[in-house]
Amino acid sequence: MTCFVYDYADATDIGRELLGGKGAGLAEMTSLGISVPAGFTVTTQACVEYMRTDGVLPRGLQGQIDGALAQVERATGLRFGDTTNPLLVSVRSGAAVSMPGMMDTILNLGLSDAAVKGLARATANERFAHDAYRRLLQMYGEVVEGINGHLFEDELSRLKAENGVQQDVELTTDHLAELTRRFKAIYHNRVGTEFPQDPSEQLAQAVRAVFDSWNTPRARAYRRANAIPDDLGTAANVVQMVFGNKGSTSGTGVCFTRDPSTGERGIWGEFLVNAQGEDVVAGARIPEPIDRMSAALPAAHRQLVETIELLEAHYRDMQDIEFTVEEGTLYLLQTRTGERSAQAALRVAVEMVSEGPLSKQEALARIDPAQLDQLLHPTIDPAADYEITCRGLNASPGAATGALILDADTAETRGRAGEDVILVRWETTPDDFHGMLPAKGILTARGGLTSHAAVVARGMGTPCVVGCEAIAIDMQARTVRLGQTTLTEGQVVTIDGTTGDVILGEVALVSPEIGAHFQTLLEWADEVRRLGVRANADTPEEAAKAREFGARGIGLCRTEHMFRDDDRLPIVREMIMATSEDDRRRLLEELLPIQQSDFEGIFEAMVGMPVTIRLLDWPLHEFLPRLEEAETPEVAARVRALREENPMLGWRGCRLGLLRPEIYEMQVRAISRAALATLERTGEQPQVEIMHPLVGFGNELGELRRLTLDTAAAELEQNELGLEFAIGTMVELPRACIRADEIAEHADFLSFGTNDLTQTTLGFSRDDAGKFLPAYLDDRVLQDDPFETIDQAGVGDLMAIGVERARATRSEIKLGICGEHGGDPRSVIFCHKLGLDYVSCSPFRVPLARLAAAQAALGELSPREIEVGG
Amino acid sequence: MTCFVYDYADATDIGRELLGGKGAGLAEMTSLGISVPAGFTVTTQACVEYMRTDGVLPRGLQGQIDGALAQVERATGLRFGDTTNPLLVSVRSGAAVSMPGMMDTILNLGLSDAAVKGLARATANERFAHDAYRRLLQMYGEVVEGINGHLFEDELSRLKAENGVQQDVELTTDHLAELTRRFKAIYHNRVGTEFPQDPSEQLAQAVRAVFDSWNTPRARAYRRANAIPDDLGTAANVVQMVFGNKGSTSGTGVCFTRDPSTGERGIWGEFLVNAQGEDVVAGARIPEPIDRMSAALPAAHRQLVETIELLEAHYRDMQDIEFTVEEGTLYLLQTRTGERSAQAALRVAVEMVSEGPLSKQEALARIDPAQLDQLLHPTIDPAADYEITCRGLNASPGAATGALILDADTAETRGRAGEDVILVRWETTPDDFHGMLPAKGILTARGGLTSHAAVVARGMGTPCVVGCEAIAIDMQARTVRLGQTTLTEGQVVTIDGTTGDVILGEVALVSPEIGAHFQTLLEWADEVRRLGVRANADTPEEAAKAREFGARGIGLCRTEHMFRDDDRLPIVREMIMATSEDDRRRLLEELLPIQQSDFEGIFEAMVGMPVTIRLLDWPLHEFLPRLEEAETPEVAARVRALREENPMLGWRGCRLGLLRPEIYEMQVRAISRAALATLERTGEQPQVEIMHPLVGFGNELGELRRLTLDTAAAELEQNELGLEFAIGTMVELPRACIRADEIAEHADFLSFGTNDLTQTTLGFSRDDAGKFLPAYLDDRVLQDDPFETIDQAGVGDLMAIGVERARATRSEIKLGICGEHGGDPRSVIFCHKLGLDYVSCSPFRVPLARLAAAQAALGELSPREIEVGG
Repeated sequence: MTCFVYDYADATDIGRELLGGKGAGLAEMTSLGISVPAGFTVTTQACVEYMRTDGVLPRGLQGQIDGALAQVERATGLRFGDTTNPLLVSVRSGAAVSMPGMMDTILNLGLSDAAVKGLARATANERFAHDAYRRLLQMYGEVVEGINGHLFEDELSRLKAENGVQQDVELTTDHLAELTRRFKAIYHNRVGTEFPQDPSEQLAQAVRAVFDSWNTPRARAYRRANAIPDDLGTAANVVQMVFGNKGSTSGTGVCFTRDPSTGERGIWGEFLVNAQGEDVVAGARIPEPIDRMSAALPAAHRQLVETIELLEAHYRDMQDIEFTVEEGTLYLLQTRTGERSAQAALRVAVEMVSEGPLSKQEALARIDPAQLDQLLHPTIDPAADYEITCRGLNASPGAATGALILDADTAETRGRAGEDVILVRWETTPDDFHGMLPAKGILTARGGLTSHAAVVARGMGTPCVVGCEAIAIDMQARTVRLGQTTLTEGQVVTIDGTTGDVILGEVALVSPEIGAHFQTLLEWADEVRRLGVRANADTPEEAAKAREFGARGIGLCRTEHMFRDDDRLPIVREMIMATSEDDRRRLLEELLPIQQSDFEGIFEAMVGMPVTIRLLDWPLHEFLPRLEEAETPEVAARVRALREENPMLGWRGCRLGLLRPEIYEMQVRAISRAALATLERTGEQPQVEIMHPLVGFGNELGELRRLTLDTAAAELEQNELGLEFAIGTMVELPRACIRADEIAEHADFLSFGTNDLTQTTLGFSRDDAGKFLPAYLDDRVLQDDPFETIDQAGVGDLMAIGVERARATRSEIKLGICGEHGGDPRSVIFCHKLGLDYVSCSPFRVPLARLAAAQAALGELSPREIEVGG
Repeated sequence: MTCFVYDYADATDIGRELLGGKGAGLAEMTSLGISVPAGFTVTTQACVEYMRTDGVLPRGLQGQIDGALAQVERATGLRFGDTTNPLLVSVRSGAAVSMPGMMDTILNLGLSDAAVKGLARATANERFAHDAYRRLLQMYGEVVEGINGHLFEDELSRLKAENGVQQDVELTTDHLAELTRRFKAIYHNRVGTEFPQDPSEQLAQAVRAVFDSWNTPRARAYRRANAIPDDLGTAANVVQMVFGNKGSTSGTGVCFTRDPSTGERGIWGEFLVNAQGEDVVAGARIPEPIDRMSAALPAAHRQLVETIELLEAHYRDMQDIEFTVEEGTLYLLQTRTGERSAQAALRVAVEMVSEGPLSKQEALARIDPAQLDQLLHPTIDPAADYEITCRGLNASPGAATGALILDADTAETRGRAGEDVILVRWETTPDDFHGMLPAKGILTARGGLTSHAAVVARGMGTPCVVGCEAIAIDMQARTVRLGQTTLTEGQVVTIDGTTGDVILGEVALVSPEIGAHFQTLLEWADEVRRLGVRANADTPEEAAKAREFGARGIGLCRTEHMFRDDDRLPIVREMIMATSEDDRRRLLEELLPIQQSDFEGIFEAMVGMPVTIRLLDWPLHEFLPRLEEAETPEVAARVRALREENPMLGWRGCRLGLLRPEIYEMQVRAISRAALATLERTGEQPQVEIMHPLVGFGNELGELRRLTLDTAAAELEQNELGLEFAIGTMVELPRACIRADEIAEHADFLSFGTNDLTQTTLGFSRDDAGKFLPAYLDDRVLQDDPFETIDQAGVGDLMAIGVERARATRSEIKLGICGEHGGDPRSVIFCHKLGLDYVSCSPFRVPLARLAAAQAALGELSPREIEVGG
C-alpha cells in the first residue's frame, strides 16, 4: 500500500516533493536533533489523489493517520481527544515550492467543550484554554466551512466594546468563555450543525480543508505569477501544538539567519512575548526586534542562536525560522530557505563564498536572475529636494512614484492600463495579491517587516513601506490621511522602500547602479558564460548605460526616432507627401547630416564593440498625423491611402526599403559617413552591422545587400581606411526561420526578432492580445505569457529550425536575438541551448542576461563537474 | 568552342531548349522532308551569354553566323549582300516556351539602296522591291533603334492623303520609292546616322535586337502571367525570305490542324492572297477562310493538306502553322503546338484517344488544369431577354458583363480595384497585355480569330469578341459608338465570346455545365487519382453545385453568413451588446432554430458524404456597424472596445469560442439537432466534422473538444441512433504546423487553412499586400503570388512539418486543405506529394482539382510505366 503519512522521526530521506517544504524542514530538523514539536506529514501525493478523485481521500489514509497520531501521543505522553489533558495539534499546509501565506492552517485541533475544561485544569490556565478554543472555532469556521472571518472579528469587537476593553489581552476568562459561546452560535447559524466535538472528525476535515486550499483563487494567482505547476498539490502537516501564549515565559517569533533586505550576517527578526504565531505574521500586534529576546527569554535566545548556527551549516543558506517558546522551552516550528531581497541574495551568496561554504559556481547557480530586476529599479535622486511626510518600515527596496490607490481591484485595473499606481492598505492579505502585482509600490499602515505585504513585495521586487502609522484610510470618502495632509485617491505620492520614507507628490528618481556584490557575481558570471550579451540601445546615452552594465555591443539600434524626433518629423512628412522620387531624395538629403550625427554619437559611445543598426522598419503611416488631425485634404488623402487593415503584416520593413530605396540609401550613406568620421576622430574602426528588418525571402536580402554595398562603396571610396560593414537581417517571420538557408546566403549575421516572430507564429497581435491572453493565462490554456518568455515549443522550435538551416548554408554566420526575450532569464537559457552567439536586451536587463547566460553554461555541467564549497 | 549556330538541315536532335520552339519546328520539318525556307538558329544559349555579359555577343558567334549564312547561300543559290539578286533573310525570335507576339522579328534584311534595284530587276517587280525595302526600314527602325512606329504610320497616311489613295495596295511604285526616302529621313532624323547599307551590320544588329526583346516590359509581364522563368532567353532564327506578296499566285496564311475554339477536326485558319505574314497577324486586312484557298491556290492547298497529315502524325497533337506561297510554291514557316481553348483541348485530347495516337494517361497529362477554368465561366442565361446590338467574331468563349474601358492602364487600375471591366480597343497589341489580364472581357473593332486579342484572350480564358466592325472609338471624348448608340466610358455592356454577340447593359449569366468531353476526361482522372476532392460550400445551393462537379464532400462550410444574413444580424448585434452571459444565451437561443435549418439544408444536399463545418471564425466587430454608423453611444462604445490594431491576429476563431463558449455551444446544438433531423428524414447518417478555427495550442483544441462532445452528448442522448461527430481544426498558424503533434492529440482531422497560414508565415496581410506585392512580382523578388499558388519552400515546408508531426501522434488522422490553394493545380500536385487525404476548393474549381490530382498521381510513374497510345 502507498505510504501517505510520514512521522518526522522517520522521514529524513523522503524529500520535499512528497513532504512539502515545511514537512521536509521538520523532518530534517528532527534528524539534526533540534527541538521541534512531534508530528507527521500527510504527503502531497495524498493531496494529488484527493484532487484527482474530486475530493475522495485515498483508501487507507485514515488508518495511517491514526497510526502516526499514536506515535505522536507516545512521544508527547498526551492523548488526542483526551478530556483531561488533551493533545492539541495544528494542521498546516506546506507545498514542495514555497507559497507563503497562500494556503490554510488550523491550530488547536483537539479542543471541544469537554476538552477545554481539561486543558484549563491541566495548564492551570483557564483563560489560556478558552482563548485557544475561541481561536479554533474561528479558524475552523473560516477554513473548513468558509464562514466569513468578519463575522468573528465583528463579534470580538462588539464584546470588547460591551466591556469597555481596548486590547485582546485585556479580555478576561469570562469574556473569552462568552466569546466561545458566541462563536459557536455563529458556526451553528452559518453551517446549520453544531461545531464538531469529535477531534477525529476535526482532524479529517482540517486535512481536507488544507488540501482544498491548494486551489483557492489566490493560490492559483500566486502560482501563475510564479510559474508553479498546478498539479503539485500541498502536503498537510499534523503537528503537536506548543503554546507561546502561556504567560511571560512563553513567546513566539520569526527570524532570518541574515538580514533579508541587505544580506548582512546576524539574526534578524521579531518576537512577541505571550503570543501565538499568527499574532506576529498577521501584523495585528507590532512585535519587538529579536535582539531584545536575550533580555526577555535569555535561555531560549541562547538556544536559538545555537540552532541557527546548526541550520546554516547544514543548509548552506540563509534560513527563515518560526519558533515558539513554551514556558521557557524553545521549539522550532519551521525552517525554510529565507526569502530575501535581490541585494541580500547577492550579498549572502558572495559572502558565503568568502566564508567558505559555497563555491563561486554554487553562488552563481543560487541567484534567481529574474529577482535581480529589483536592483535595477530607480531610486530617489540624491540631489532632489523634497520633504518627508511620514516614515514607515523599509520593507522592500527601491523608490516608486504613482497614484494612490485604495483597493486591489482598482490597482489591478489602473495598473494594467499602464498607470503607475501605489497600492495603499491598512495591511494586505493574500486576497490583495492581484492588485499588488501591477502596483509600482505598496504602502501599508500596519504590519512589520515579516507581514504579508513585506514578504510579497520583496519577492516581487516591488518597493514597499509597511507599518506607516501616520496613515489613516477612509474607504467611504476614498481618501488617505498622511500625517497632517488628506489626499484623495488618485493623487500622486512617492515611497522609498529602501528608507521607509513617504513623500507627497512626485520626486525625481535616478537609475540604479550596480553594487559591489552584484559586480563581483557578474564578474564570476562572465568567467563562466559562453553566450555574448549586448544591449538594445537607440541613443548614445542608452549605449553608455549599456556599457556600464556590461553589454559588449549593441544588438539592436532602432532608427525610427531619427525620423520622428521633432526636428525631423516635418521633413519626413514632406518626404512622404512628395509624389516624385526626385523630391523624396532632395528631402532625404536634408535628413542625412542630422542622422549622420545621431550615428556618430552611438559609434563613439561603443568604440571597440559591434553596433547593429536596424534600418527603418515602421510603416510610413506611423509618421503621418491621425486622419482627424490632417491639416490639408492632401495629407488626409495620403493618410487614407497608406492606412492598413493589419499594419503588422503590411508595407513596412524591407518591403518599404525595396520600394523606396532612396530611404535606405540615405540611411546607409549617413552610417558610412558617421563611421568614417568616428574612425578619423578615434582612430578605431567602428564595427558596424547593418540589419534589414522583416526579411522573409532570400531575394529580398540579396537585393538589399547589393543596395547597401553599392551605396556604402560610393561613400567610402574616397578613403582607404578599409572600413567594412557586416550585413544581415532580423529573423522575425516564420518563413525567415523555415528558409534561413536561402536568407543566410546573403547574410553575415541573423538576429531573431522574437517580438514579431511571436506575433506571427502564434497569430497573436500584441496590441490586441489583451482581449484574450489574460483569460488564456487564467485558464491555463497557456502557462506563460509568450511575450514575456519565449514559447519554446512553438516559436523556439522554429528558431531551432532557423539556426540549423542558417548554419547549414554558412557555418560561420553570427546568430543573435534582439527581441525583449533577450532579457528574460528563461529565454536566455534557451538561447544558450540553441547555440546562439549572443543575446541583446534592454540595458537594464543586461546584468540579468549575464547571470542567466552563466547559469545556462553551468546547467550543462554534470553534477560531478560542479565545484563545491566548504 | 561552344556551337551557337545550327543550320536546320543539321539540327534534328538539338532540341527546343537551345533552338527555341520556332527553330526546333523548322529543323524537325526539314528532317521530315517538308518544304521550308533555308535558314539557321542562333541558340538561346547565345542569348543567355549576351544577357549575362550585359550585351556582348559571345566570342566566335560572328564566324559561326557567317558559316551558316554561306550554307543558306549554297542551298538557295543566292548571295546575302548581292546587289543584283540578293538573298533576303528574316530574323525571328523564338523561345523554348511559346510567347506569341511578345518578342520582335525583322523581315527583308539584306536590302540596301543598291540591292533594292537588283531585287527589282531580278524579280521584274519594282513595286514589290520598294515595298519590301520600306517594310525593312520601318521594322528595323522600330526594333533596332526604338523609333516610335507612329512616325512611320503617320508618314504613310500623309503620303496616301497627298495622292488621294485609300488602301496600301493602291500605292504605286513611285509612291513606295518616295516612302522609302521619307522613311530613311525619319531614320536619320531620329538616329543621327544613315540607315546601314551593309547587310552584315543589319544582320548583327537584328540578332542583338531580337535578344534584347526578351526583356521588354511586355515580354516580362507575359512571363510573369505565365510563370515562365526570366533566364531562359530566346533563340534568333535567321531564315531565307520567301514572299507571299509577289502577285496573285502568291499568298500567306496561318492555320490550325483542328478548330482551336471547339477542337473539331479539320483545317481551320485564314489566308490572304498577295500579302506578307504580318498582314494576317496584325489584323490590318481581314483575311479569308482557309477553305477558299483550294480555289485560289489549288496546288498549294493540296500540298498544305498533305503536310498537315504528316505533322499531326509526327507530333501527335494539334499544330499551329504559318505558311507562305511564293509564286505557287508552298513554304512552311513555322509549326508549333496550337494554342487552344480549354474546350478544344479537351476534345482534341479525348478524340485523339479514340483515334488512337494517345493513351488515356497521355490525354490526362496533356491538359493544363488551369486552362479548364475558362470552361467554368458563366454564359448568358438562355432564358434571358435581350437584344443583340452588334456582332463580331467569337474569339474566346464565355460571357462577361462589365464597364466599358478604353485603355489598358485604366482597365488595369479599375480591374485590380475589383471592378468588372470590358476592355474595348480598335485592336490590341502586346503593349495592352497588362490591361487585358484583369479584364472580364475583351472587345476589338478589328482583327481576325488569330489576331493578338483573340490569341491572348483564349490563352487566358477571357471571353473575347474581335473584328466587331460596328464599333468606333473616340479617345478624345472617351466614348464608343456601338451601332446606333454612343456609350460613355464606364457604361455597362455584355459580350458573349461563344457567339460574338455584343449587348448593351447587363444580361443574366448562368453557371457553366461540364460538357461530354470534359466529363469523360474527369472520369479518367478519377480512375487515376488518389487525392480526395471536396468543395468549400456554405449553402445547400453551393453544395449541390459541388456534387454536380464531382466533389465528394464539403471540406469547408463557413458559418459566418448564418450570423450575418439579414434575419439574424439584429439578434447577433443585440447578443454582442449584451453584458451578461445569461442575456447572450437567451439571444443565441433565438438563433438556434434558424441555424439548425441552415445545417439541415446542407446535410441533405450532401447525404452520404462528409461535411466539415467550421464554427464561427470572425471577430465580433465584423458584425457591428462601422463606428460612424453606430446608432447609439452604447453601440459606438462597443465598436470602439472591440476595435483591433491587427484584427487578423486578434480575438477571433477559437479564442472567441473559448471566451464566449455559449456561441460555439449554440452552434454545436444546432448541428446536432440538424443531424438528427436529417437522419430521421433520410435514414442516412450525416457525416459531420466539426472544425474549430485558428487553433495554435493543443490545450485550445482539448478544451473545445470537451465542449463540443459534452454539448453534442446532451443533445443526442435522447436518441439511440449512434450519431458521432469527428472533431478537428484548421491549421492556419505556423505554431499549429510546428506543434501539430500536440494538437493532433485532440483531433480526428486537420485541415490546412493556407490563406491565413500564408498571411502569418510570410507576414503578408492579404488586404494590404497590394501596396508591395505587385512590385515584388514585377521585380521578381517573388516568382508567384503566394495567395494564388502555395509558397512551397516556405508555407509548404511548414505544412510538411505539420503533416509529419501530426501523423507521428496519430497515424490515422485525416489531413486536408481548405484554403483557396485547394483549387490551384500546382498546389494540388504539391498536396498530393505531401500525402494529404483531400483538397477542398470552390465548387467551380473541383474539376480542375480532380484533373490536377490525376496528373500528380501520373507524375509519380516512371516513363516506362506510362501507357503510350498509337
